[in-house]
Amino acid sequence: MMMQKLRRSGELIRFGCKSLFTSRPNKNLVSRSVSGFVNHYKSKGKLFELSDGNYNTELHHPCISRNLGMLLQQYKCFGSSAASKIQRNPLFSSLDSRDVSYFKEILGEKNVIEDKERLETANTDWMHKYKGSSKLMLLPKNTQEVSQILQYCDSRRLAVVPQGGNTGLVGGSVPVFDEVIINVGLMNKVLAFDEVSGVLVCEAGCILENLATFLDTKGFIMPLDLGAKGSCHIGGNVSTNAGGLRLIRYGSLHGTVLGLEAVTANGNVLDMLGTLRKDNTGYDLKHLFIGSEGSLGIVTKVSILTQPKLSSVNLAFIACKDYLSCQKLLVEAKRNLGEILSAFEFLDNNSMDLVLNHLDGVRNPVSCSENFYILIETTGSDETNDREKLEAFLLKSLEKGLVSDGVIAQDINQASSFWRIREGITEALQKAGAVYKYDLSLPVEEIYNIVNDLRGKLGDLANVMGYGHLGDGNLHLNISAAEYNDKLLGLIEPYVYEWTSKHRGSISAEHGLGVMKANEIFYSKSPETVALMASIKKLLDPKGILNPYKVLPHSLFSH
Amino acid sequence: MMMQKLRRSGELIRFGCKSLFTSRPNKNLVSRSVSGFVNHYKSKGKLFELSDGNYNTELHHPCISRNLGMLLQQYKCFGSSAASKIQRNPLFSSLDSRDVSYFKEILGEKNVIEDKERLETANTDWMHKYKGSSKLMLLPKNTQEVSQILQYCDSRRLAVVPQGGNTGLVGGSVPVFDEVIINVGLMNKVLAFDEVSGVLVCEAGCILENLATFLDTKGFIMPLDLGAKGSCHIGGNVSTNAGGLRLIRYGSLHGTVLGLEAVTANGNVLDMLGTLRKDNTGYDLKHLFIGSEGSLGIVTKVSILTQPKLSSVNLAFIACKDYLSCQKLLVEAKRNLGEILSAFEFLDNNSMDLVLNHLDGVRNPVSCSENFYILIETTGSDETNDREKLEAFLLKSLEKGLVSDGVIAQDINQASSFWRIREGITEALQKAGAVYKYDLSLPVEEIYNIVNDLRGKLGDLANVMGYGHLGDGNLHLNISAAEYNDKLLGLIEPYVYEWTSKHRGSISAEHGLGVMKANEIFYSKSPETVALMASIKKLLDPKGILNPYKVLPHSLFSH
Repeated sequence: MMMQKLRRSGELIRFGCKSLFTSRPNKNLVSRSVSGFVNHYKSKGKLFELSDGNYNTELHHPCISRNLGMLLQQYKCFGSSAASKIQRNPLFSSLDSRDVSYFKEILGEKNVIEDKERLETANTDWMHKYKGSSKLMLLPKNTQEVSQILQYCDSRRLAVVPQGGNTGLVGGSVPVFDEVIINVGLMNKVLAFDEVSGVLVCEAGCILENLATFLDTKGFIMPLDLGAKGSCHIGGNVSTNAGGLRLIRYGSLHGTVLGLEAVTANGNVLDMLGTLRKDNTGYDLKHLFIGSEGSLGIVTKVSILTQPKLSSVNLAFIACKDYLSCQKLLVEAKRNLGEILSAFEFLDNNSMDLVLNHLDGVRNPVSCSENFYILIETTGSDETNDREKLEAFLLKSLEKGLVSDGVIAQDINQASSFWRIREGITEALQKAGAVYKYDLSLPVEEIYNIVNDLRGKLGDLANVMGYGHLGDGNLHLNISAAEYNDKLLGLIEPYVYEWTSKHRGSISAEHGLGVMKANEIFYSKSPETVALMASIKKLLDPKGILNPYKVLPHSLFSH
Repeated sequence: MMMQKLRRSGELIRFGCKSLFTSRPNKNLVSRSVSGFVNHYKSKGKLFELSDGNYNTELHHPCISRNLGMLLQQYKCFGSSAASKIQRNPLFSSLDSRDVSYFKEILGEKNVIEDKERLETANTDWMHKYKGSSKLMLLPKNTQEVSQILQYCDSRRLAVVPQGGNTGLVGGSVPVFDEVIINVGLMNKVLAFDEVSGVLVCEAGCILENLATFLDTKGFIMPLDLGAKGSCHIGGNVSTNAGGLRLIRYGSLHGTVLGLEAVTANGNVLDMLGTLRKDNTGYDLKHLFIGSEGSLGIVTKVSILTQPKLSSVNLAFIACKDYLSCQKLLVEAKRNLGEILSAFEFLDNNSMDLVLNHLDGVRNPVSCSENFYILIETTGSDETNDREKLEAFLLKSLEKGLVSDGVIAQDINQASSFWRIREGITEALQKAGAVYKYDLSLPVEEIYNIVNDLRGKLGDLANVMGYGHLGDGNLHLNISAAEYNDKLLGLIEPYVYEWTSKHRGSISAEHGLGVMKANEIFYSKSPETVALMASIKKLLDPKGILNPYKVLPHSLFSH
């Protein structure tokens, strides 16, 4: 059957990359994380519970021990209560009319936004899950203005939230209270593009899709692509270390971002805007700003390595009978398609059924109903060779029994219909009822075990689905139920986080921690590293004005 | 001619990657760097020279301004004298018999080395350019022992130098004075390898070539390869952010290293040993330890993404009439060979003549003598397709006039003879007389301008050669002369550094700064970023015991 389909696919077609950035966590998790860190320490014999309920530790690092004290305080606090409500830091000033006058002076009237409607939008995240109460949004036009704003806010101890396209999923880009919003949307110029090296230098407020359009005219593509590309800013992408579709091929932003300019809390401009692939002169500080969610500085310029646009794109939709076959297929794909592999996505049968049941006009591209489905996309420079390579690979996999059935898209419509299944899962989940969503990284061999374990634990209470970027070890674990209820939530959490932590996974693969999971960091990071993060935060932002209440546990910065 | 050669190349062959890691700087540069930083500041209107010869600055960052004061002190110091002699930090303790006894207690007698011969080797870098006078080398067997050693040394304020294979080129891995050498060579175990994800976890003392051999049996390769692979340790590779041959294909270690374990100065063990491709939970601290040359911590374990070993390797040797053609060929190669391109190296005619004149048995593979030569290597999964792709690319380039002549290696001997030319340059230079060596990163379009400019400046005084990793923008600039002399050196320096700085290049592309260029950092990094580096150094190593006198300007840590 598959061979016939392969034979029929005489004419392969080109089509653009599709968005898979569909996982949207939709609830704020109650903090239960710190027990994990205390147990970790206890097991190392470095933490001792005293009879008075306090703790003693053998760790003596000067910068760690101070923060460790705070961690322990936090444990006591969270240990006795599940309350994770955040208090506004009373040390922060409140905005007054003199502040607004000053900002109008440096930015001009029209770039100091007090209009309620515009503030309503800027205060609310796109999921309408998080909402702040900022009274002011500032629109700087250049680095110098960002620097002046921050220098002033730091001196006045006015908290700020850096904002780009406001497309984040964890409440990182909206105020928690009355923080001043600094939106870099007016800083949207391409500053340089080198067609020899492919290095693009631009301002932080450039919209990802606009950069992609600009590069398209030059025959290049951005090394990242994601669903929010029509709104998200490259500065936000960098600040959140956005993952997305092309990571399996071009790697993370830690590899592709060559340089940054960032402004620290006190207005100091750090020029790290190199455009070189190799530069071993001192510590590579830009990495501190990649993925720190605006809590260490505001990224104002980005230098990034773009990739030549290749002419040939192919897509296969494949059925596999079990997860082990999916794993083996991934290994084989890396080996046999390695240099042209550009996506390796998976979904389970529960996800497929959901899509077939809830979305109109969707059909299963393969003839048989199987337990797992894989999408393999290749991108290369030679249409004939690439097609032959993919066909040969699939035939070989069929012969080896790794694949039950499969088909290669013959035109752009067919390719779109394949992607529609993968991308439609989120929409189908929303139509199916209540949904609990988790974005996890796990060792590839463990990925489906958590789905099975949770399925066993929940029984008939809910429908557990697994899908995601298998090639990157990124699972989108979704639990669909008739309605939200505390009993179900109690079975899922902290079970999912503990399971992930036990297998050295990450509780945030590509979405960041933001305000949603700031207190959950210990599930994925050791106390010593969190303490060092806090020390670095204090070094770069001693007054804590930059994006407060985000990324790091709130109690580390308790007032 | 070329077409005939292409036609004849009926049978392509497989061969291993060859070492290009041949640039060996051979002199310690006198510091003249700080003037650049002062001019940079002055031009920004943020630094004012006072009548008394002191400086005033408008910068107010709390952590920056303190260090800025030291930078200014340094400027005054270096401005008035070229003396860059380093003084031993008198705050460091000197080793005594109780220290040795303690180390014997925790490591065992045989792993505490006082033997003069072994210390002589460990005190000397492989170029015999740098030599310390350490009286003790310690050989810890595990992380716990490294932690105990550092905790003790920190409490005693005994300076240490971390050492791996001791193959560095800038004096980073040997003591400057009497620092205790901590060599991690006994920590050489592979801890885990995941054949699905390709993630390797190992101890820092694993020799790169041993890892490559281990992976070969699994059908994988390391994402880096370099000339020193028979001796260098993966921990040293990470600590120096080693570049090497495969960077154009697999990117830098900031992209391929997934996790680290490192011990900070006071013995605190930082577990950052993730094995995930995606993990957005807090600041990605491991990047601080990649390329910081052991000055922030000792890397004890490494988790790294390895690549499937692909079956087909091809090599072409090509002649181009001018540098613009080389540039255009690089652009075309990225576009048309993008996914299989694994090396793009260049040498100029002066380099070729030198090799032909000084090395036996070497001949120019192409029939014509041209101004530039390019080596293009491809690595892919399909022998027939890859060969056709390379041949088609070369024919097209010939038709476009980018290439004058070229040949594809027909067997491993021919391939070796091509690499021999590129790799033989260093040897030929040594035979030709005195040589001044520089390892620079520059925008690709500028790379050959510095060669031409320097050639114009030096006239008949010396033979200026340019070669290197063109695909990565990495130039090895070499000046060959009959003998070393101060007049020639005065014409080359600081001219080369200033030229590099003016074009936003890097004075250390892949070799690091070590002790050799610690004072030259301002040619490539802004004062604000250097000041922040110093603050981070002080945060992580308050007593400055870790690899002192390296990486950062000495006067920042003046005593």
